[in-house]
Amino acid sequence: MELALAEARAAAARGEVPVGAVVTDAAGAVLARAGNEVEARHDPSAHAEMLALRAAAAGRADKFLAGCTLTATLEPCPMCAQAASFFRIGRVAFGAYDPKGGGVDHGARVYAAPSCHHVPEVVGGLRESDCAALLRNFFAARR
Amino acid sequence: MELALAEARAAAARGEVPVGAVVTDAAGAVLARAGNEVEARHDPSAHAEMLALRAAAAGRADKFLAGCTLTATLEPCPMCAQAASFFRIGRVAFGAYDPKGGGVDHGARVYAAPSCHHVPEVVGGLRESDCAALLRNFFAARR
Repeated sequence: MELALAEARAAAARGEVPVGAVVTDAAGAVLARAGNEVEARHDPSAHAEMLALRAAAAGRADKFLAGCTLTATLEPCPMCAQAASFFRIGRVAFGAYDPKGGGVDHGARVYAAPSCHHVPEVVGGLRESDCAALLRNFFAARR
Repeated sequence: MELALAEARAAAARGEVPVGAVVTDAAGAVLARAGNEVEARHDPSAHAEMLALRAAAAGRADKFLAGCTLTATLEPCPMCAQAASFFRIGRVAFGAYDPKGGGVDHGARVYAAPSCHHVPEVVGGLRESDCAALLRNFFAARR
C-alpha cells in the first residue's frame, strides 16, 4: 500500500485525482504500479487500477493474474472491479471506501452479482485514513 | 450495427470471441470501430467496446463522448458499461442480450445503481438474432 500511496501522491502532483494502484504476485513481488492518468491520456478509463492490471499482465507470458493482488488506494469503481475479475486477480485490497463511486462494497457491487464468474478475495480499509486524506486534500485545494 | 457486426465477424476470424463495437457521433459519423482483441493483446480488458471508446475519444480534442452512441453486438459487461458512463456517451445500443455476462440489463446492472453519475440512453435487441447467431456459431464450432 505504501507504493500505491506514492503513486497516488505522484498523480496528485500531475493534477490527477490521487489514486494509485499496485499489482503484486503471490510472492509479493511488484509486477506493475500506476497512478491515475485520466487527464494525461485524455482517457476517462485510464484509472490507476486498469493501467496496473494491463501492465502487470503485459509483463508476463500469461494474460491472467491468478494468485496476484491488486492494491489500490481507493475502492475500485465498477469498471476496475470487473476488470480485476476478468484478469482473475486473486485478491483486491484497497484503502479508502468510496460510497459515491465504488463498485465493490457500494453501488453496482460487481462481485455480488451471481453472474460474476471470478470473485477475488476483498480486503478494504487498509491505510484508510491516509488514502482518504490524500483525496480530501486534493479536492479541498481545488475548491 | 452493420459495421459492428463486420467487426465481430473479423474478430471471429482472428479466433476472438465475436463481439464488435462502433462509436458514432451525433451526426452518425463513425469515430471508431473495434472488435474484441483479448487474445491478440493478451489483455482480458481489451473488449471491443473499451477499444472503440478509447479510440473515439483519442481522435477528438475532447475526452468525453457526449451525444455519441456506442453500438455493440452484445450487451456490454459491467466494465464496458461503466466505461461508457465515464466517457459520458449519450446512448448505448446493443444487439444480443447477455444474461451470463451483461452488466446493463443483467448482473451488476451498472446504470441502475444510484451512484452511477451518468446514465446513457439504452437500446437493446438491435439485429439481435444476427448478433447472437455469430456468438452461438463461434462457440459451437469450438466444442
